[in-house]
Amino acid sequence: MKNRLIPAAAATPLATGLAQASKPPASAADSDPVTLGWMVGSPPPADKLIRWADMSFFRFPQYRWTFANFRQLLPTTNVSRGDAAVAVLPRAERSDIDGVSFQPLGSTDTMTWARSLEANYTDAIIVLHKGRVVYERYFGVMDASRPHAAMSVTKSLFGTLAAMLVAEGTLDPNALVTRYIPELKDTAYGDASVREVMDMTVGVKFSEDYADPQAEIWEHLRAGGVFPRAPGSTGPQGFQQFLLGSKKEGEHGQAFGYKTINSDVLGWLIARASGEPVGRLFTERIWSKLGAEHDAYMIVDSTGYEFAGGGFNATLRDMARFGEMMRLEGRFNGQQIVPRAVVDEIRRGGSQAKFAKAGFSTLPGWRYHDMWWLSNDEDGAYAARGIHGQTVYIDPKAEMVIARFASHPQAANAHLDPTSLPAYRALGRFLMR
Amino acid sequence: MKNRLIPAAAATPLATGLAQASKPPASAADSDPVTLGWMVGSPPPADKLIRWADMSFFRFPQYRWTFANFRQLLPTTNVSRGDAAVAVLPRAERSDIDGVSFQPLGSTDTMTWARSLEANYTDAIIVLHKGRVVYERYFGVMDASRPHAAMSVTKSLFGTLAAMLVAEGTLDPNALVTRYIPELKDTAYGDASVREVMDMTVGVKFSEDYADPQAEIWEHLRAGGVFPRAPGSTGPQGFQQFLLGSKKEGEHGQAFGYKTINSDVLGWLIARASGEPVGRLFTERIWSKLGAEHDAYMIVDSTGYEFAGGGFNATLRDMARFGEMMRLEGRFNGQQIVPRAVVDEIRRGGSQAKFAKAGFSTLPGWRYHDMWWLSNDEDGAYAARGIHGQTVYIDPKAEMVIARFASHPQAANAHLDPTSLPAYRALGRFLMR
Repeated sequence: MKNRLIPAAAATPLATGLAQASKPPASAADSDPVTLGWMVGSPPPADKLIRWADMSFFRFPQYRWTFANFRQLLPTTNVSRGDAAVAVLPRAERSDIDGVSFQPLGSTDTMTWARSLEANYTDAIIVLHKGRVVYERYFGVMDASRPHAAMSVTKSLFGTLAAMLVAEGTLDPNALVTRYIPELKDTAYGDASVREVMDMTVGVKFSEDYADPQAEIWEHLRAGGVFPRAPGSTGPQGFQQFLLGSKKEGEHGQAFGYKTINSDVLGWLIARASGEPVGRLFTERIWSKLGAEHDAYMIVDSTGYEFAGGGFNATLRDMARFGEMMRLEGRFNGQQIVPRAVVDEIRRGGSQAKFAKAGFSTLPGWRYHDMWWLSNDEDGAYAARGIHGQTVYIDPKAEMVIARFASHPQAANAHLDPTSLPAYRALGRFLMR
Repeated sequence: MKNRLIPAAAATPLATGLAQASKPPASAADSDPVTLGWMVGSPPPADKLIRWADMSFFRFPQYRWTFANFRQLLPTTNVSRGDAAVAVLPRAERSDIDGVSFQPLGSTDTMTWARSLEANYTDAIIVLHKGRVVYERYFGVMDASRPHAAMSVTKSLFGTLAAMLVAEGTLDPNALVTRYIPELKDTAYGDASVREVMDMTVGVKFSEDYADPQAEIWEHLRAGGVFPRAPGSTGPQGFQQFLLGSKKEGEHGQAFGYKTINSDVLGWLIARASGEPVGRLFTERIWSKLGAEHDAYMIVDSTGYEFAGGGFNATLRDMARFGEMMRLEGRFNGQQIVPRAVVDEIRRGGSQAKFAKAGFSTLPGWRYHDMWWLSNDEDGAYAARGIHGQTVYIDPKAEMVIARFASHPQAANAHLDPTSLPAYRALGRFLMR
């Protein structure tokens, strides 16, 4: 298995345009989207223009603007906050957090919390301790009212929703996928179970390596309309159509394999089992009950299918409300939103042995279950994680929730973990003192 | 000049696919998007799928779904309601309005209010009398929380904003357009004034005839990304780039000529004069002060430029709030949002003589000013109007405001006016009794 702790300079070719060059990408300060003036002016000058059709929207450093502006580039649906009052997050901000220091993974030096935000190209970060906002920062084009791409944090949102349907008996984890989606009979999913989809142990040929231009993830994103298709392309149109061409590789249930198309299958399963579009069901069952400050939104494909693998966009505080709800075992804003047993089941599940086979070197001893990443540490910390540094990190023992948006030059979180995971752990200890 | 009171069967070719057929389009009931089941299912069956790339989104009857779902098909930006409380619209609904009868233009029969809604393919309609909701109905896929395309009602929203800038001295109506936008020097706008743009008396070659596939409006919408471009197209990309190719036709200032590109120029003028994107300025100065129930949104082109000619989408009640603010001469929700003098100036301006030259046979004696349609009747009624039946109609004497969304098989409001304008007039008389 590939070691994902690759050097910082080996950036995604498309994402940086630096594949041929040896110099590292610009620093957080040097790539600040406000300083660089992207999309300012009417019209913006040609060298400050970010477009979808020419893929400039997904290049570094341009995407430091894009991640806070996806709806301006792509079709979306609304995820309504509903009409209820905002669940106010009490504030108890601390000025001493910036100085908290920690030792990055694989390093003998120490680093401060404040410096880690630069190292990680953080766009926005909030820390809740015992439900109170102890730290909140915005960088670049971000502010408190602006949704940012949650990327694969989306998976955990819909994994939670699926776990709710399982608990209710609406979705049978032991059933074959084809019980709900007979169309997938002749694909990789023909003999896979719902549980194998939810835990990403399906044997399917699909590379998620953003550093490899031939990886299936690129064609997948073109099918979903996230990336433009070549003129005259006869490839699949829509995430569901893409799945119809998926091929089995290896055996199901043996090893964790992080493959975004499993989330597309899960969204489809949720829609079929519940009879509702996954975005609408998520809105009804979870988002509209959180007392969110703002509507969120989902990127959709050309058939209106929500991008369950990475299409969610929301404001920072609202992501923190979701995390706080999970920390409180589903009870938040005066109501039990997710059943306590569902949160417990999410935290307990998954296999260390199967996870280890995937070779995530920054995550030793972790598990993956219901589309959540489970640390197995003594705090019971677990997280939703998305490329380029999106996360909702929950440390139950430290009574701490962190939501972070970022736009790191590399996609894989292996590039951010060394200066994030130990920082979160150190902050948890600091707050518990 | 062309008589726009064309027969109902002569539908827009692209919009109906019936150009070769002689049969009339399906009735409102037979084209109900819920009954027809558009976009239901995961995925929707092929014959129920509505897509942007194949233009099915802009065909009748599909667009009866589309007009309530534009953000699912196109890039958009948010128009925030802000954080203030909703301006509650008191309710005093009357059951006797459906029976109000009137004589359609050019007819000797009578028609009831209720029947007129079917005749006009109404998607949603609300009537305020003295600020209270006396009537409110939703049809098809519409409901109170769903934004609908306002089409060219957008023009009046931004015309109002421009008139505010004029009143403040930020935008000089007597200046040449090129004072703010030197890039337009060698175009139709090279020797046009800001006032001529605001009143649409610019001599520019641009046909708005949706029934003519060769009309410039189609290429314009392709440039703006509202319609898909042909593969390999080398045409303009973006509304502003389209304007760079505009050619003069006739003289400026002589006659009203309804041409959407004037609104693109106005949006550009607003952005240049104020230094802010027009959507953001509209949000700050107007929308966020209305106590709107919901965020609205704007369709944007591939450069992020707001479609000032027709890209606004909002909920019905929020459109009514805007209309009520205008009826109350700018004072609404406890504050003076638009200066009283600006509303008065809008209502007074424009020329009947210049308007008459455009040949709008359903609108005898009307004027056009600051992108508003002014009836010149004894009530001082005036309106914002968009294709396929979008309107905000304000009758100051009757103390009545009507907001309507529709999806009529024909684009031109000449098809709706015969069963709308006399209905509104009759309802005003009814409410004044």
